[in-house]
Amino acid sequence: MAEIDLNADLGETTAGNPVADDAAMIQLVSSANVACGFHAGDPHDIARTVEAAAQRGVTVGAHVGYRDAAGFGRRFIEYAPNELADEVLYQIGALEALARKHGTTIRYVKPHGALYNAIVHHAEQSQAVIDGIKAFGGDLAVMLLPGGIAVHHAEKAGLRVISEAFADRNYLPDGTLVPRSRPDAVISDPEVVAARVLQLADTGTITAVDGTVLNVPATSVCVHGDSPGSVAMTQSIVDRLRAAGIEIRSAL
Amino acid sequence: MAEIDLNADLGETTAGNPVADDAAMIQLVSSANVACGFHAGDPHDIARTVEAAAQRGVTVGAHVGYRDAAGFGRRFIEYAPNELADEVLYQIGALEALARKHGTTIRYVKPHGALYNAIVHHAEQSQAVIDGIKAFGGDLAVMLLPGGIAVHHAEKAGLRVISEAFADRNYLPDGTLVPRSRPDAVISDPEVVAARVLQLADTGTITAVDGTVLNVPATSVCVHGDSPGSVAMTQSIVDRLRAAGIEIRSAL
Amino acid sequence: MAEIDLNADLGETTAGNPVADDAAMIQLVSSANVACGFHAGDPHDIARTVEAAAQRGVTVGAHVGYRDAAGFGRRFIEYAPNELADEVLYQIGALEALARKHGTTIRYVKPHGALYNAIVHHAEQSQAVIDGIKAFGGDLAVMLLPGGIAVHHAEKAGLRVISEAFADRNYLPDGTLVPRSRPDAVISDPEVVAARVLQLADTGTITAVDGTVLNVPATSVCVHGDSPGSVAMTQSIVDRLRAAGIEIRSAL
Amino acid sequence: MAEIDLNADLGETTAGNPVADDAAMIQLVSSANVACGFHAGDPHDIARTVEAAAQRGVTVGAHVGYRDAAGFGRRFIEYAPNELADEVLYQIGALEALARKHGTTIRYVKPHGALYNAIVHHAEQSQAVIDGIKAFGGDLAVMLLPGGIAVHHAEKAGLRVISEAFADRNYLPDGTLVPRSRPDAVISDPEVVAARVLQLADTGTITAVDGTVLNVPATSVCVHGDSPGSVAMTQSIVDRLRAAGIEIRSAL
Repeated sequence: MAEIDLNADLGETTAGNPVADDAAMIQLVSSANVACGFHAGDPHDIARTVEAAAQRGVTVGAHVGYRDAAGFGRRFIEYAPNELADEVLYQIGALEALARKHGTTIRYVKPHGALYNAIVHHAEQSQAVIDGIKAFGGDLAVMLLPGGIAVHHAEKAGLRVISEAFADRNYLPDGTLVPRSRPDAVISDPEVVAARVLQLADTGTITAVDGTVLNVPATSVCVHGDSPGSVAMTQSIVDRLRAAGIEIRSAL
Repeated sequence: MAEIDLNADLGETTAGNPVADDAAMIQLVSSANVACGFHAGDPHDIARTVEAAAQRGVTVGAHVGYRDAAGFGRRFIEYAPNELADEVLYQIGALEALARKHGTTIRYVKPHGALYNAIVHHAEQSQAVIDGIKAFGGDLAVMLLPGGIAVHHAEKAGLRVISEAFADRNYLPDGTLVPRSRPDAVISDPEVVAARVLQLADTGTITAVDGTVLNVPATSVCVHGDSPGSVAMTQSIVDRLRAAGIEIRSAL
Repeated sequence: MAEIDLNADLGETTAGNPVADDAAMIQLVSSANVACGFHAGDPHDIARTVEAAAQRGVTVGAHVGYRDAAGFGRRFIEYAPNELADEVLYQIGALEALARKHGTTIRYVKPHGALYNAIVHHAEQSQAVIDGIKAFGGDLAVMLLPGGIAVHHAEKAGLRVISEAFADRNYLPDGTLVPRSRPDAVISDPEVVAARVLQLADTGTITAVDGTVLNVPATSVCVHGDSPGSVAMTQSIVDRLRAAGIEIRSAL
Repeated sequence: MAEIDLNADLGETTAGNPVADDAAMIQLVSSANVACGFHAGDPHDIARTVEAAAQRGVTVGAHVGYRDAAGFGRRFIEYAPNELADEVLYQIGALEALARKHGTTIRYVKPHGALYNAIVHHAEQSQAVIDGIKAFGGDLAVMLLPGGIAVHHAEKAGLRVISEAFADRNYLPDGTLVPRSRPDAVISDPEVVAARVLQLADTGTITAVDGTVLNVPATSVCVHGDSPGSVAMTQSIVDRLRAAGIEIRSAL
């Protein structure tokens, strides 16, 4: 039976102010990228999300980011590599303590926001992130955009890589995402998005904007819960996948 | 042979700006209360202090504080208990990851600043701190002011308590510290301070301002490294203790 | 013609993540309590709210809070008075610069969250807040809960006080709010809430839970925009007030 | 009579933990670049530095930086231009309120750390900083490294530019600083440093590492107070300048 992992960014509630509908999303996804308090989240709100993930059997990932709550981790910061490695390690350790309290454990790390994008091409920061993950020890995987330098660094370090696709984004024929500056960057029709996830889960392909059928090695698809519409879209994706007999489960 | 633990607050350097002379102090103390990034310290500077402690065989404690870098953790904050417990747990986990990277591990927790003082009497916050430590698991001790409610909560929870004395503070006949508002609160003569540590290590007593000889159950003495004078005072204490054949070693 | 001021907490968006629907609320209220970046808000998001207020002719107030973004300013912090006065002054100055850029100016100060509650009874912090406002100079008013010590300090300092009522909260016969721990603390029926505002605007009274009719000196009513339901309730209040010929306008 | 401005970074004390010896430096310099709370400084410590500057008649500048206290503003952050402009404006407004409380006013803005370096070449951030300063209004000057794009943007915006030289840094024949990676980047001999300031004040020139005599348009020299040695070096510079009859005064 075909299967696919659905992951979402959760645990970003700070001081009780939610960014996404964590309670709804935790019912729909198989992997939770849980904020670690640097780009968003405070320990208690993070812990509640981890607890819900543990109760539902959702796989927990550490969603590590730049220390920039005022910018939600969306701004590139020029960290020295050894600083960045320790920032990553610190966040993993902090989240792991909260995870263990609730009987679960971190299984993977997903860099967040500007850090996620930076390590596609920024060799020093990419290596630093991998160094931070390795320093934590254990058997952590890392969730990355396919094709970036971080994939190379991760594999060299012996880390398992979870490749990720974006269901609501259009792809160019070369396999990169249509830039957000273009009007066709984002797909907003739930039916279309769900169909794309289905195609990926079924055939391992995504159809680019020009009709090219791309082989995409992704085993996880990023979904969103930061608006009523995005939760509904995720529900629609889940319904379609289930109807098609595709299992939603963690890639780990 | 008599022995005593000397502990100091370290790891409070942020962005390379030192608060204390960590390099000098790590040579003198047996226990390092290492900041966890909430009241002070950033991950990389913290890691460097932990590394130095590991190299010297100095016991590492997690110096957990209120999340108030702008106030250095010196202002009481009215946290909800379950929030505070998770803030404590988060800090321990973060520091533990940095400690393990350098081949050591956290052996105890010492609350910092306003939190240290609050849990002498604030029952809810005291219980929350103990809950946070317990949630981390393992075999952590907790370093506390003798006589406070936190000692009671810690013992009830089965945590080993390290009782702490202040070498450079005068005591009242009832065993509490002379308030800082009084001119005789702090002792600045290194000879006198060293003699008091010697007396404590030797006899388990401290002489109060009125001459009363107090039985003080402390096995650890707090020393300071935040000025050239305080490092020199610590060196003087160490010299006297060694000359008297008293071993400086962790209480754990 | 009778009139009433409707005020709402706005500008709390941080890094693009909204807490309330500022765009909708700015169309409904006469006064905007704009966050100053300490409990919430970043400069650019704050500036956008100020700009919208300026365009609509909504009166701008500085919503000053404790520096505790991770706690949204909802936790009491034991500041030294001279520290707190400068924190208040700093926030007012920062917001004023953003306000002037958009052709408006701060007309009043409203303390936020735990600070708002603290200065009802905490004499030192109350005086510090008033000192911070006075130090800014100009002709700032201060929005406060009637009956607290801050009202006394403000009047003594020559500041104009805007007294505030809470439309969606029940009152006890002594004029204080029914504590949130009681099930009848909050009123959720828009019709009832709107009727209460109408009564206040019309007669200067609020009916307590036991039927006592209280004289309430409030000229401003706090409304909320942090959920779809609260925006709808505010719209319902506005509609009722307009239908009754009551003008919604700033108390200044 | 020849004259020169000596400027120093001050007000970076946070929670009572000093970075520089502000009390000593305020006696020696003619311009104080006062931190605004983003890269360092809390409102009350900032206010104390402004107060000392006001008492000594030292010119106050707003030392605006990236919002990165954990990195002391030394890491480049990729702000959107309109965000950065508002961050600059916010900081100026906040400091101005503290300055007015103590009877003085901001006369210039000096970008700090990574922001200072970025706007030498980063056109968007440079324009954003100038936009933020212009939005504040008044008659603010801006202190910059000569030759950068920010000088161009400032002049185009009608801002007066204070050009700055570094007394303790060696220069290359092309007028740029010897990179810190080279062993001859920094000059540590107080006599040599003082002689260089003297030469600049007297002749408007600095001698590069290869002996080339450079025309340097600087009217202000940056001095440091972050170690006992740096305060002593500043004192030595001041003594030499006075002995040579060169007046130390603000360029404004």
